[in-house]
Amino acid sequence: MKRSVFFISDRTGITAEALGEALITQFDDFERTEITIPFIDTPEKAFKAVAQINQASKNDGIRAIVFDTIVTPDLRKIFKGANAMMLDFFHTFIGPLEQELGKESSFTVGKTHSLNNVKAYDHRIEAVNFTLNNDDGATTQNYKDADLILIGVSRCGKTPTSLYISMQFGLKVANYPFIAQDMDNLKLPKDLALHKDKLFGLTIFPERLHDIRTERRANSRYASQQQCQLEVRAVEALYRREKIHFLNTTTRSIEEISAKILVKCKLSRHTSPL
Amino acid sequence: MKRSVFFISDRTGITAEALGEALITQFDDFERTEITIPFIDTPEKAFKAVAQINQASKNDGIRAIVFDTIVTPDLRKIFKGANAMMLDFFHTFIGPLEQELGKESSFTVGKTHSLNNVKAYDHRIEAVNFTLNNDDGATTQNYKDADLILIGVSRCGKTPTSLYISMQFGLKVANYPFIAQDMDNLKLPKDLALHKDKLFGLTIFPERLHDIRTERRANSRYASQQQCQLEVRAVEALYRREKIHFLNTTTRSIEEISAKILVKCKLSRHTSPL
Repeated sequence: MKRSVFFISDRTGITAEALGEALITQFDDFERTEITIPFIDTPEKAFKAVAQINQASKNDGIRAIVFDTIVTPDLRKIFKGANAMMLDFFHTFIGPLEQELGKESSFTVGKTHSLNNVKAYDHRIEAVNFTLNNDDGATTQNYKDADLILIGVSRCGKTPTSLYISMQFGLKVANYPFIAQDMDNLKLPKDLALHKDKLFGLTIFPERLHDIRTERRANSRYASQQQCQLEVRAVEALYRREKIHFLNTTTRSIEEISAKILVKCKLSRHTSPL
Repeated sequence: MKRSVFFISDRTGITAEALGEALITQFDDFERTEITIPFIDTPEKAFKAVAQINQASKNDGIRAIVFDTIVTPDLRKIFKGANAMMLDFFHTFIGPLEQELGKESSFTVGKTHSLNNVKAYDHRIEAVNFTLNNDDGATTQNYKDADLILIGVSRCGKTPTSLYISMQFGLKVANYPFIAQDMDNLKLPKDLALHKDKLFGLTIFPERLHDIRTERRANSRYASQQQCQLEVRAVEALYRREKIHFLNTTTRSIEEISAKILVKCKLSRHTSPL
């Protein structure tokens, strides 16, 4: 029996999904169909969503589970008509917070993922652009403006991590690859040595690197077990010799790698609002 | 009086921040210092965090507010020693869910932002790589593999939006710019016309475009009010003529733009788990 799980929001639904997923994945073997309905910001849309939930509950033969972050009280009331277990991520906490702060909340929809502060937003876009322009060692001349420089062998996760950090945390992240030709006598290039306090190393298990590179260029020297082993060994030795913080990306998600780097580099996460 | 607000997690802290921010921004003029402490996954770290919270409460002269997503019950208990208002995003809901589902949760930390499913993770990385390789009209030959193709004038938000959608939702997003030379007799290029069902247009207010382009290339024709107006007008006319869905990015966050595009294009958000 598959059960329907809804994520409902008057905005993007991203927060409802994230916390809902964190909760639901605690239950093993829970067979489910997941449906996200974002931008429920009028009574019409709310009634339509309730109808969709009720239809799902009927089809499944068991009431749906609904995670929601609906802010507006009037819209919330409409969901009382849903034949579902409602888990209300927003109002559960807003009451206690009002009491603690001794004032009423403004019930303004979507202060989080909307654009309240053009300056902070520009800062974030600027960070993403910086990261794109300084990807893969494209240039080393902007390192003075970087908040962070990720280093590592080709295909160890530098680019996605750089992009995530700039997008989520508003930091300017450059990245620089060590390539096969560097390996014989691996040293920190001068442009990197000048900014050693901004460096963070990524590494990866050679077997996993071999798999990833094989997808890209099968049967090449680049993808060979031997070359992957050699590069990873050389680069990790460099990190240790130069006392550069580093992290193995193999079993970690981009979010996890990013958050760990920020901790190790003592970088603030709040340069840009979410 | 500034009050300390903590976001505490045994994983990345990203979800605690998102929901905490959504709640806290409902209170206007709430002067606060925000501190995120992620990866609280041992009793030692938990005790250290409690000490930091208590010190902040003491310094502020008022107890701190703590938003947390700590999963492990033993670690949660340690936070009972905190002189703070604790808002517990996880355990508040896990009890009711256990009852509803008729089984116990596994209390496994961090199933959300950790790497459980290598295949789904690879899919997401592949999507990001596709997006990077098909940015800014770099090539049009891969459009058959794209889930979505964003179109619009230079600097209207195509690249950050493409990257966010691929990273968050695991979709392959190409983007294609219309440039000044196209404007005289603007038509849909053949490569785009072939994939009309995948197209989504972005637009922007000409004044805002002028500001953004001025930052980039001041006093150029490219940044002039007149040119910005001309391009936006021509592109919006094209969208209407060709019946292409489009959205004005000017007052919207990347998350909001991305989520709206997925709704309009009826694209699934769950091709990759969060």
